[in-house]
Amino acid sequence: MSRDARFQAEATLLGYHFDGEIKIGGNYVPVVRDGQQIFISGQVPRVGDTVVVTGAAGAEVDMARAQIAAKICAMRALALLQRALGSLDQVRAILRITVFVRCTADFTQHSEVADAASEVFYRVLGEAGAHTRTSVGVLQLPKSATVELDLIASALEP
Amino acid sequence: MSRDARFQAEATLLGYHFDGEIKIGGNYVPVVRDGQQIFISGQVPRVGDTVVVTGAAGAEVDMARAQIAAKICAMRALALLQRALGSLDQVRAILRITVFVRCTADFTQHSEVADAASEVFYRVLGEAGAHTRTSVGVLQLPKSATVELDLIASALEP
Amino acid sequence: MSRDARFQAEATLLGYHFDGEIKIGGNYVPVVRDGQQIFISGQVPRVGDTVVVTGAAGAEVDMARAQIAAKICAMRALALLQRALGSLDQVRAILRITVFVRCTADFTQHSEVADAASEVFYRVLGEAGAHTRTSVGVLQLPKSATVELDLIASALEP
Repeated sequence: MSRDARFQAEATLLGYHFDGEIKIGGNYVPVVRDGQQIFISGQVPRVGDTVVVTGAAGAEVDMARAQIAAKICAMRALALLQRALGSLDQVRAILRITVFVRCTADFTQHSEVADAASEVFYRVLGEAGAHTRTSVGVLQLPKSATVELDLIASALEP
Repeated sequence: MSRDARFQAEATLLGYHFDGEIKIGGNYVPVVRDGQQIFISGQVPRVGDTVVVTGAAGAEVDMARAQIAAKICAMRALALLQRALGSLDQVRAILRITVFVRCTADFTQHSEVADAASEVFYRVLGEAGAHTRTSVGVLQLPKSATVELDLIASALEP
Repeated sequence: MSRDARFQAEATLLGYHFDGEIKIGGNYVPVVRDGQQIFISGQVPRVGDTVVVTGAAGAEVDMARAQIAAKICAMRALALLQRALGSLDQVRAILRITVFVRCTADFTQHSEVADAASEVFYRVLGEAGAHTRTSVGVLQLPKSATVELDLIASALEP
């Protein structure tokens, strides 16, 4: 199965599709390329016009919902990579993901939330999905989103 | 008008100047270059020796003041790029800006604050000012600053 | 003294060793390389299996303990760089460190905490340890860690 087919399979499993415009919430662009490196803007769990998971992990958002938020962020980032490169087969490596988790003061399972995003990269990209990661717990995120994820990738072709 | 002239015009509009030393607050350097990539340290809204916008967005700092903070951070980053490259005409692209906004637990307009910084990059650099962005709401920032902004840029010449 | 010897001397001063596996807390990898750039995952002050400094700076963690946390994070990042490159002599530059400090709402000395990490890079790497830095105060970190630090470095050889 190609990576693009695996991406579609993940979207189906998740119950969302990422075919339309990947909307962003401000005066910037979703993707900038520099040689083989591709920078992707911070993604919140927005599907179409709606941020579908909002609130704080550890309070109104349980682990399962926070992990869905992380997966949607990862899928949006992959959708943007796919459009920038023509196919996910052109991804050589994911260099860095940063995962910001909106949480309560006593929530410490940021790694478990971020693991759900990491799993998406491995499932879709295989070995090329291995990545470095930083996960952090923050007070708030744009539009009350539960998770925000950005990344830097490296493409096969310059 | 050259980008350097537009930078001066923005500084005049903002009512601050960025001619002197761009002071930093610790044991590090403001700029490191790696080939065509230029990394700029996190900038707070410091003018000379003073951090001019402090406090939390959503509490003692209103949107207009938070946006001024974001603009000063962006101008400081541009001043550092200008010094590193000789002229802002040497900027090929802004690859990533990360905007940390100190805020209250219920403040969710981080994108609106960050838009003020983004606008500075577009106004000064034109199309080269297009950038990816991550904006996040945090509990505190160094020196109680309301905004901190860092960036990675790409230069025309290696 | 070689950088690798200075690294050992720092470890001895700090009273910890970094010889064994550098464990990470999730489904990702500690290091990814892209040409001459090396990305290191976010490091918490873990020694072996234990996160040795937990809690919020400004509350249960005083400045001295927070600085020890920052130093352990920096040493872990250097240990990973050393393994990836064979020797710390292969480090050309530290391009960026980001230092997240878990803190109280009124703690503003993030730069002073981060300076302890910065000092480690200078002491071990000399001039090559000069780096850009962003330090931020956050509500929580994985495993209640007091500090998390990630970095991007540049190697001498491609």
